Amino acid sequence: MARVVVDVMLKPEILDPQGQAVQRALPRLGFTGIADVRQGKRFELEVEGPVDDAALARIREAAETFLANTVIEDFTVRVEEAAK
Amino acid sequence: MARVVVDVMLKPEILDPQGQAVQRALPRLGFTGIADVRQGKRFELEVEGPVDDAALARIREAAETFLANTVIEDFTVRVEEAAK
Repeated sequence: MARVVVDVMLKPEILDPQGQAVQRALPRLGFTGIADVRQGKRFELEVEGPVDDAALARIREAAETFLANTVIEDFTVRVEEAAK
Repeated sequence: MARVVVDVMLKPEILDPQGQAVQRALPRLGFTGIADVRQGKRFELEVEGPVDDAALARIREAAETFLANTVIEDFTVRVEEAAK
């Protein structure tokens, strides 16, 4: 079983109120030196069988059609743990 | 400016209804071979100044007290882009 991670983040030009809320709260809690915070989603997919180019292409398609809203979000797909 | 990423995921023993919803939807949409899906949060922090051990320790403290609920969530902190 291999683990594939899909990270979904709002595009840089899209306002991120969740990230802003975190950024503004940090100094109040004593954490300084953080210029910007963006908050997104992380999906961990446990994939059966080999994670070859075909499998990654299918996962990329799933991410594009289903996990991310590509109008406002960017996503990345990467293999985090090879099959054991 | 360096980018530090904090990934927050539900602990393995905690039920993840969002991930389950995604997992169940995938076969209906024609994507098979995904045994499990977990959904979590990804924070991208743009850090001013050098990301040394002290800065990472502070970010780890912020993650523990603020970004993650450590009763039910695990988090990882890593430097994704070194200072430019």
